[in-house]
Amino acid sequence: MAKDFPTRAENYSQWYNDLVIKADLAENSAVRGCMVIKPSGYAIWEKMQAVLDKMFKDTGHVNAYFPLFIPKSFFSKEASHVEGFAKECAVVTHYRLKNSPDGKGIVVDEDAKLDEELIVRPTSETIIWDTYRNWIKSYRDLPLLINQWANVVRWEMRTRLFLRTTEFLWQEGHTAHATREEAIAEAEQMLRVYADFAENFMAVPVLRGTKSPNERFAGALETYCIEALMQDGKALQAGTSHFLGENFAKAFDVKFLSKENKLEYVWATSWGVSTRLMGALIMSHSDDHGLVLPPKLAPTQVVIIPIYRNAEQLAEITLTVNKIKANLQAKGISVKYDDRDTQKPGWKFNEYEFKGVPIRIAIGPRDIENGTVELARRDTLEKSTYQIIDIENKIEHLLVSIQDNLFQKALAFREENTRKADTWEEFNEILDTKAGFILAHWDGTPETEQKIKDETKATIRCIPLNNQPEEGKCIYSGKPSTQRVVFARSY
Amino acid sequence: MAKDFPTRAENYSQWYNDLVIKADLAENSAVRGCMVIKPSGYAIWEKMQAVLDKMFKDTGHVNAYFPLFIPKSFFSKEASHVEGFAKECAVVTHYRLKNSPDGKGIVVDEDAKLDEELIVRPTSETIIWDTYRNWIKSYRDLPLLINQWANVVRWEMRTRLFLRTTEFLWQEGHTAHATREEAIAEAEQMLRVYADFAENFMAVPVLRGTKSPNERFAGALETYCIEALMQDGKALQAGTSHFLGENFAKAFDVKFLSKENKLEYVWATSWGVSTRLMGALIMSHSDDHGLVLPPKLAPTQVVIIPIYRNAEQLAEITLTVNKIKANLQAKGISVKYDDRDTQKPGWKFNEYEFKGVPIRIAIGPRDIENGTVELARRDTLEKSTYQIIDIENKIEHLLVSIQDNLFQKALAFREENTRKADTWEEFNEILDTKAGFILAHWDGTPETEQKIKDETKATIRCIPLNNQPEEGKCIYSGKPSTQRVVFARSY
Repeated sequence: MAKDFPTRAENYSQWYNDLVIKADLAENSAVRGCMVIKPSGYAIWEKMQAVLDKMFKDTGHVNAYFPLFIPKSFFSKEASHVEGFAKECAVVTHYRLKNSPDGKGIVVDEDAKLDEELIVRPTSETIIWDTYRNWIKSYRDLPLLINQWANVVRWEMRTRLFLRTTEFLWQEGHTAHATREEAIAEAEQMLRVYADFAENFMAVPVLRGTKSPNERFAGALETYCIEALMQDGKALQAGTSHFLGENFAKAFDVKFLSKENKLEYVWATSWGVSTRLMGALIMSHSDDHGLVLPPKLAPTQVVIIPIYRNAEQLAEITLTVNKIKANLQAKGISVKYDDRDTQKPGWKFNEYEFKGVPIRIAIGPRDIENGTVELARRDTLEKSTYQIIDIENKIEHLLVSIQDNLFQKALAFREENTRKADTWEEFNEILDTKAGFILAHWDGTPETEQKIKDETKATIRCIPLNNQPEEGKCIYSGKPSTQRVVFARSY
Repeated sequence: MAKDFPTRAENYSQWYNDLVIKADLAENSAVRGCMVIKPSGYAIWEKMQAVLDKMFKDTGHVNAYFPLFIPKSFFSKEASHVEGFAKECAVVTHYRLKNSPDGKGIVVDEDAKLDEELIVRPTSETIIWDTYRNWIKSYRDLPLLINQWANVVRWEMRTRLFLRTTEFLWQEGHTAHATREEAIAEAEQMLRVYADFAENFMAVPVLRGTKSPNERFAGALETYCIEALMQDGKALQAGTSHFLGENFAKAFDVKFLSKENKLEYVWATSWGVSTRLMGALIMSHSDDHGLVLPPKLAPTQVVIIPIYRNAEQLAEITLTVNKIKANLQAKGISVKYDDRDTQKPGWKFNEYEFKGVPIRIAIGPRDIENGTVELARRDTLEKSTYQIIDIENKIEHLLVSIQDNLFQKALAFREENTRKADTWEEFNEILDTKAGFILAHWDGTPETEQKIKDETKATIRCIPLNNQPEEGKCIYSGKPSTQRVVFARSY
């Protein structure tokens, strides 16, 4: 299974690509830059969706669905938005094909040219705010707390499975509020929801912060983000929540009559996470033996493999397994019993290890005699013998412990790989030898950030929330600075 | 709320459109033919999705995701498929916009023209079978039982909310099998799943049958369908399941090594239902007072409205309501307590009646004294006084009873509106005066079906499964026929 599979140390990038493909999570499709999410990968995404969707609903949001296509002119209405988004996108220009006059295949029917081109949505602020204009008349119509699960398309030149693809799946929240304060509170709330999801379900520790103006969402006054650190020391932006001010309300003329009977512009937020989270999940925990999944997002949490020589032994083992399986399922634990006779136990061990099932149980005739099972945990690869009595409670605790261990391990890694740099030389040395997050002073100007990016490919990942003030000098310009910000090279 | 809302008898078509819009289910968007599914409508679709998704998984299917775009050349590979689908579709020809040279807005960048145009998927057989070629090598890789939840685009000239829109949401199952028999069994199984869903969740009785060749899916050897009858006597195709034979395997060269070590083509099925089901649901049960929803798909099953004069009364009522609410929720019943002081009880009564909440409870100070509530059921509009004691069990039973009543009512309607026609005159008279399903003899030829369609707009909705053989003469051609088939005008 895992042959020709490089270690992380040998080639991290190749390790990731091979892992995604060999673990059957996704593959490149016949359409440039678009991926096929395979059943094993999609099952993880479905678990993510279910958790997030519940979190959104618990915070008062409802789902809706807006069109895939956006009229080209909509993008021109919000000036900074068009710069950020409308350039690299899929453009629909025609609505009909016809048989080729030469009889070979089909061609675009030039008679079916659209008067105005349609853009396949790269994000939906424009079409949604054009719609909100008719939904919002009075303060009684506010807040609008709406989320959409959808596919979006951004024409990417260099793509990587899950991390950067031309089409990807995501959710985008778009909320409308009567006041600035309420909109900011919403954007901050959704950042907390994302951080909660990343840390407590994905077991991925994240920094919470705001983006510098250079890295802000096109059209936002403030972009909040969560930033995770991958095992190769590169950062990955795992979710963003934007305070959009009145920009989209002004662009699409969305006003409401306030309690004081005044016509005012509506305040907006938007926030999103995408199938990119799959990349973050895979890269955070997996190892040279394959995928490692946190129990809370593993489609199969426990796999049971029988070890037997004949049908009689298998029958006896199956009897015991069926009880264990039923007890586990009663606790809401997902369990698979792999009694296929087409593969040997050793092959199955490798298979489930590679695919990241958190707990593997093996049962043979001697185990039945002794009332035991052999249990292997994927995170540490440790094997132990357990008494069958009360095994479902032991497994339940073990799953919690594996979930926690993965988080602690990732947290320790991040802490080891978060370093201060006080000079330009130090900054460059860390970047080139150790990578990770670098805490450094910055003079606060977009120009300096751009120069640092041009020279090192490192960007400001975030300005942490509740950052400690600290006097210092910008590592690049030497100008005064009042706080350290977080730099890294990133995905 | 419901003013300017026509009755079904006055104008069925307008009644439907107004209902969809005034009940906040969906609306037309700024993009021609594309709808916005509003939160109230999307909540119903989410309930449909959850039930169907579980049914698919219970029958062994898994979800995956394939690209939105399909290379144009893929459509030319399956000859009948291209005729049926590739003509009216959204064509992506460019991947970049640029600032207009005149400084006004943005224009398509002609330098960013795609070498091969991409079609926004109208259905995914081609891209999926192109992918399956790499997934299927041996009989061990079969069956592949995969479903996808996705958006699709078919460029429709005349659109109606939910019933026919340019973009719609759906699920499409695409399965691959080693034998013809297994593929047919799968297609028939999924028809049963759809019929079960329609009848036991949507409370919509459906005919199960096969399509005549004229109405078959483009590329199928057999199309199974479920057909429902709307209150205006028009039929609505509510779901289809296709046996595709080896057509797509041959078009995309998908072969497998059989147990007997022979290289064979793979057998295929595909099956789908869409947001069109929303139209069927709305039109089947709703009345001149507004929406009527079957309890199993109603996002809010019970609404409770307090009747009070002062804060003290409200506080007392709320105390009682909170207990009822908790008891209902413990039974998995979704309940909303509308204690807003911005609207009067009468307004709320109308509102929830119009939006189809199955049960409405009103509680006033006298009810508190008497230990009673006033309960109104949406399906019959009957009001009764109930003792509060054990109210949650009474409501639970009442929800079951409403669900059943809606189905029985729709079934009785269909039976009353299913008629035999033995002559061409009779056929036309029924069509023009009563509509409904017409059981009539047909000579079995596509030519006759086409002529009947051209002259009457009626089509063969299905040839019922397990149809009784009966000797007769075709109503149109007078030629001999061995069975009656089901005709109707349809959505």
